[in-house]
Amino acid sequence: MIDASVFRTEPWLVREASLDLDVLAQSESVFALGNGHLGLRGNLDEGEPYGLPGTYLNGVYELRPLPYAEAGYGYPESGQTMINVTNGKVLRLLVDDEPFDVRYGTLHHHERVLDFRAGTLRRTVEWASPAGQVMRVTSVRLVSFTQRAVAAIEYEVEAVGDPARIVVQSELVANEPMPLPDNDPRVAAALMAPLVGEDHGTQRDSGATLVHRTGHSGLRVAAAMDHIVDGPERTDMFSESSPDIGRVTITSVLQPGQKLRVLKLLAYGWSHIRSRQALWDQVAAALTAAVHTGWDGLQAEQRQYLDTCWSRTDVELEGDPQMEHAARFGLFHVLQASARAERRAIPAKGLTGTGYDGHAFWDTETFVLPVLTSSRPEAARNALLWRHSILPAARERADALGHTGAAFPWRTIAGEECSGYWPAGTAAFHVNADIADAVLRYIDATEDTDFEAKEGLELLVETARLWRSLGHHDEHGHFRLPGMTGPDEYSALGDNNVYTNLMAQQNLRAAAELARRHAAEAGRLGVDEDERMAWQVAADAMYIPYDAELGVHPQAELFTTYRVWDFENTPPDRYPLFLHFPYFDLYRTQVVKQADLVLAMQLRNDAFTDEEKARNFAYYEALTVRDSSLSAITQAVLAAEVGHLDLAYDYLSEVAQMDLGDLHHNTRNGLHMASLAGVWTVIVAGFGGLRAHGGRLSFAPKVPDGISRLSFNLWYRQRNLCVTASAGQAIYDLRDGDPITIAHYGEPVEVTPNDPVKLPIPPLPTRPPPSQPPGRAPARRIPPGGEEARDS
Amino acid sequence: MIDASVFRTEPWLVREASLDLDVLAQSESVFALGNGHLGLRGNLDEGEPYGLPGTYLNGVYELRPLPYAEAGYGYPESGQTMINVTNGKVLRLLVDDEPFDVRYGTLHHHERVLDFRAGTLRRTVEWASPAGQVMRVTSVRLVSFTQRAVAAIEYEVEAVGDPARIVVQSELVANEPMPLPDNDPRVAAALMAPLVGEDHGTQRDSGATLVHRTGHSGLRVAAAMDHIVDGPERTDMFSESSPDIGRVTITSVLQPGQKLRVLKLLAYGWSHIRSRQALWDQVAAALTAAVHTGWDGLQAEQRQYLDTCWSRTDVELEGDPQMEHAARFGLFHVLQASARAERRAIPAKGLTGTGYDGHAFWDTETFVLPVLTSSRPEAARNALLWRHSILPAARERADALGHTGAAFPWRTIAGEECSGYWPAGTAAFHVNADIADAVLRYIDATEDTDFEAKEGLELLVETARLWRSLGHHDEHGHFRLPGMTGPDEYSALGDNNVYTNLMAQQNLRAAAELARRHAAEAGRLGVDEDERMAWQVAADAMYIPYDAELGVHPQAELFTTYRVWDFENTPPDRYPLFLHFPYFDLYRTQVVKQADLVLAMQLRNDAFTDEEKARNFAYYEALTVRDSSLSAITQAVLAAEVGHLDLAYDYLSEVAQMDLGDLHHNTRNGLHMASLAGVWTVIVAGFGGLRAHGGRLSFAPKVPDGISRLSFNLWYRQRNLCVTASAGQAIYDLRDGDPITIAHYGEPVEVTPNDPVKLPIPPLPTRPPPSQPPGRAPARRIPPGGEEARDS
Repeated sequence: MIDASVFRTEPWLVREASLDLDVLAQSESVFALGNGHLGLRGNLDEGEPYGLPGTYLNGVYELRPLPYAEAGYGYPESGQTMINVTNGKVLRLLVDDEPFDVRYGTLHHHERVLDFRAGTLRRTVEWASPAGQVMRVTSVRLVSFTQRAVAAIEYEVEAVGDPARIVVQSELVANEPMPLPDNDPRVAAALMAPLVGEDHGTQRDSGATLVHRTGHSGLRVAAAMDHIVDGPERTDMFSESSPDIGRVTITSVLQPGQKLRVLKLLAYGWSHIRSRQALWDQVAAALTAAVHTGWDGLQAEQRQYLDTCWSRTDVELEGDPQMEHAARFGLFHVLQASARAERRAIPAKGLTGTGYDGHAFWDTETFVLPVLTSSRPEAARNALLWRHSILPAARERADALGHTGAAFPWRTIAGEECSGYWPAGTAAFHVNADIADAVLRYIDATEDTDFEAKEGLELLVETARLWRSLGHHDEHGHFRLPGMTGPDEYSALGDNNVYTNLMAQQNLRAAAELARRHAAEAGRLGVDEDERMAWQVAADAMYIPYDAELGVHPQAELFTTYRVWDFENTPPDRYPLFLHFPYFDLYRTQVVKQADLVLAMQLRNDAFTDEEKARNFAYYEALTVRDSSLSAITQAVLAAEVGHLDLAYDYLSEVAQMDLGDLHHNTRNGLHMASLAGVWTVIVAGFGGLRAHGGRLSFAPKVPDGISRLSFNLWYRQRNLCVTASAGQAIYDLRDGDPITIAHYGEPVEVTPNDPVKLPIPPLPTRPPPSQPPGRAPARRIPPGGEEARDS
Repeated sequence: MIDASVFRTEPWLVREASLDLDVLAQSESVFALGNGHLGLRGNLDEGEPYGLPGTYLNGVYELRPLPYAEAGYGYPESGQTMINVTNGKVLRLLVDDEPFDVRYGTLHHHERVLDFRAGTLRRTVEWASPAGQVMRVTSVRLVSFTQRAVAAIEYEVEAVGDPARIVVQSELVANEPMPLPDNDPRVAAALMAPLVGEDHGTQRDSGATLVHRTGHSGLRVAAAMDHIVDGPERTDMFSESSPDIGRVTITSVLQPGQKLRVLKLLAYGWSHIRSRQALWDQVAAALTAAVHTGWDGLQAEQRQYLDTCWSRTDVELEGDPQMEHAARFGLFHVLQASARAERRAIPAKGLTGTGYDGHAFWDTETFVLPVLTSSRPEAARNALLWRHSILPAARERADALGHTGAAFPWRTIAGEECSGYWPAGTAAFHVNADIADAVLRYIDATEDTDFEAKEGLELLVETARLWRSLGHHDEHGHFRLPGMTGPDEYSALGDNNVYTNLMAQQNLRAAAELARRHAAEAGRLGVDEDERMAWQVAADAMYIPYDAELGVHPQAELFTTYRVWDFENTPPDRYPLFLHFPYFDLYRTQVVKQADLVLAMQLRNDAFTDEEKARNFAYYEALTVRDSSLSAITQAVLAAEVGHLDLAYDYLSEVAQMDLGDLHHNTRNGLHMASLAGVWTVIVAGFGGLRAHGGRLSFAPKVPDGISRLSFNLWYRQRNLCVTASAGQAIYDLRDGDPITIAHYGEPVEVTPNDPVKLPIPPLPTRPPPSQPPGRAPARRIPPGGEEARDS
């Protein structure tokens, strides 16, 4: 956990006012910069101390063997692990022969600021060396959104009090030593020295280039740097290189008040097919362009890019600036993870750390893409094109598993299944329906018919084929899907998991519909009328178990016959449960790690009545321990829907604190992209009540006590719609685009440009508040206004 | 597969008339000798060539790490693997400086004979060296039943034709090189050089001793040898030793017709607590006793021991000598695996190879102990005392899993869980009820009240506690056991597996009954009336699912709603299925690896009506592929019970051929103890119809076409009863003991000593023959009489 005082939240900034080495690794994640292609953890410029050094290129991984005590058919033999590539962030400073290291001497001042509008990380330090020499160091770092291969660091050193002889060593470092992995399965296995040197050299006195290749996965990585130095006369510079080190050394003597300014420009490239020379040239060219743009130009481009983004997607929460900040912090990091990913995955941790081995999961489609679809649909499109690009591997996997269609991997970087625990990995086929759901959401929001008829259709066809192959009609005609693992990881291999069956139903239906709409294209994919009808029939006959006695949907068949977990006798230090109890007992007991049936009620909103939602929500609320960071998002959305606004607000706060508060003790390994996107989701789908389907946006806005006004805007079918809610009133303001009919609490409303529609918010149904397992209720959200702002 | 011509079956022998190096490893298993404490594979005396060198001491294992791609709570971190200890079988022969090696020169004659009554392996060879020197070599090997630490080899060399200068090097060899393991998960991971030398030395010219310790498990192993040599004048001998080699070299010149006779005596010992010196002395003492007994004495003791055994348990099958032979072969090897195991496990492969890592499974209690209980109850008692001795580890395991009572390991050598795949291992809790079942069977057969009140009671109490902890009463009061893996390994984590629930019911009931009967002893184990009642209530309320629509019991709840495996499109080369299809699909489909519900009908005979048995048998017969060697045994027993005698006979043949025909292609790694015992079980429980419960033996004898007369005797409550069946008539002959009332086809019959009762065999019900999955029917059994002996 991180104390609330560490990261100060200002409207568009995260400010760390002093350095706390106990949370250094967490701060490296929080202060990570990236553009979806290149990611730099917020490591200190001087390289040490570090929590986890990290420089990542999206798609660059190494293979590692996956061992099994007892191997089985279809187990992946090797896994892909995102690796720390050549580190170009390093700028070591020597002052009168003493290295600048925050662990020595005295820190008079140390501040870091992440700026969501500037897109920079700024650091200002005043440090007295052990010998008493006082220096001021300022660095500003950016990873460019406009030049995706490029990062830059402006580094400025000033002598205070006495003249100082200083040396700056600016480096490219490959195969940095890494901390050893611990035993938590969530921590990625660190890979030592994965890069094999292929080429290196210097450019003039100011630059160096390193080219490496990964040992097993065979990916080539190039990194180059150049420097523009501004210092006193007799400021000297020279460059040198060896296979794993490129170094430019700058030396000068600064009089008090004098500054040395070093602008370090970095360019990265990687490929699995391009030659050493081609890659060398590629980074040289990128670097030349960056030098040409210059520091001011890079900063100006960065701000302009971000201004455009914020104009399309912002959230305002009057009354709770901390939550408003959390929403922006989340949107900023989601943007950093996705902006230039360009047909590569958006990993669960973005490019902020090696947690989960840098793998992408269903989190991307279900938790991250909704916000992108509503704000930067081109990024959502790219993410789906990445899924389309790994169809060959997914087809191969389905075939290896004895099925038709495509079986997308549970976790992967490059497309191959990397899950070493099949009951949680392979059997969680819902990832396929989640991808289909994201495709439908994207098509609905964009009317992108090119994509629909080509990649969208193919994704739907291949996933529908898998469902048809996995399921069967029983003798009553019901279409059944036994042995599936749903979202909840404290259950596995359940029969007719309601979430899975409903999502598969939607997948099958949509595939049949798209194949009808694009018959020629479907024909080219081998779809005939028999197959189309089989999908339709399976969807119509999909078996959805219901426990009539309890009046709730069982998460999967028989789930409600299980014993309820003995929460009373589970002390707080036994959470998360999976680290203290065996799977077999979790699986056979009514205990829920993360929203499963409740998520079904969000994504298949249409399949449940309001009363079913309320009853189901109350039932699962009492069973859900939220050992997964994904859960609170969905619980918040449904809590808001069924009328428990205070509870939704509490969950919002938990989602918002996931990384800034390090709630799951693993922010050190990277940020939780789903939670970061989830803040927006809770506000927009929870308090805003947004549901989008079939060309219709519907809303049911409401605000919890403590928030006086809530406002968000979103992009939908070439429109920019701003929704504002306060106690009693909602305002729909179409800022851009053609008139559109939306639904407000189920009633159609036409909204025309620049003519805000004001509508009353109906009173919420009053229902008894649900309870959580003992000790597992979320912390109450007390907004800055204090206790009196909320009744409880 | 082994061609039928390799092993000739004579009434009391297995004879291999010539050496086939292609099945060398299999023959080493078939010709293995052992006494339950010490096991010697049938390796050639000269050490090479070999398939798998093997000398085993029951309980001697090394630890190896169990790796996991994704670790989880409660996964065992290391496994126990039976190791090849010091090899004392080696007698290398040099003839005029040429090593005797069957791969060189010419084999004029090579015969090996395993004798079930002599308890020896005899080998006779006539070999011409590459230089043309013809030699005759005869060796007779035994592992003593009466002196459990002792083995002996009589080795005789004769020169034929020309004088020969010969050298015999008789050795103890530690850390022999081993073949590398292949990728079949059934093959034990071979461990290289597991023994660390601690001490070595020679005794006079004729003996040597080696003492080693295992590196990780810390077990000390000592082996000693001595020799008695009888040869021409100027036969010389000397001894030498080094940490891994003890060698006695004997040299002589033989004139044509002259013989050199070497009697090699071996003694083994091991301990995890005794000192190096104590163990050294222990093997020296054992060796001294063996020398004192002498070769003739050892052979005489061996024959006497076996004569006694055969008098208590023999099987005769008139009309099918091959099956009769298989029964004796099986009984002989079961005896070899158990005779002197003395509170150590009876591993699934006995001491005949390292298959399954030398682990013991539930096979012991369910498949091996029935024959021991009916023939050598003291051996069954010892096996159960072994289970009792590992109660501390089983209690610890239950506690680690969050439960009370004792959770016996799925696979182990010394008591700790060694299964690295929890859905098949940990969740297969039925092993606990299987142990309880074996306890009850033993108590029923022996009326051993000492054991009942002490170890028996404790085993039942601790296993009942586990069931009470694992299960729960639902709101209708039913006692449910969700998430259990039954015997069938093509299903896992099913809810209310009928086998498991019925066996647990028996376990709970018996625990309550024994706790009542031995109240004081139960009180000392902490059992009070509340606990006893809770067991009784759980047993009475045990939920047994039934599919009323199909009129069959589902193997587990919902099983009958699953799709039936696509047998039509599964070609023969895709069996065994688990090597070609993923678990997730096997588990969610109606396909059965091995009898599960059908085994429940055998062991809980009382819980099913005759009609239920017939319907269930037919239903599961069509789903069962017999990828497990355990399955055919049970299918044979139930086929016989419901009246499909031909089918039972076919299955009997399959069981009998498991190792002699190498049906599962893994006899090289050791023999299948369950199948070896299973031949007896099929004859006695299948054709004899034996069921024993509550002091009552019941029979329903019948003979298939092809067998004219079937006879077996068994031991029960101090009685020796011989049962004979032929077409139309059964004879019960009480050869020893007090009168007893048995049941013949349900009717009580009193049998008095030496007054055989002859009773008619009622006609069998005629039912349509069941069908097996395409291609999975057992081969038809054609007895020597030929086709006409059977109608089909």
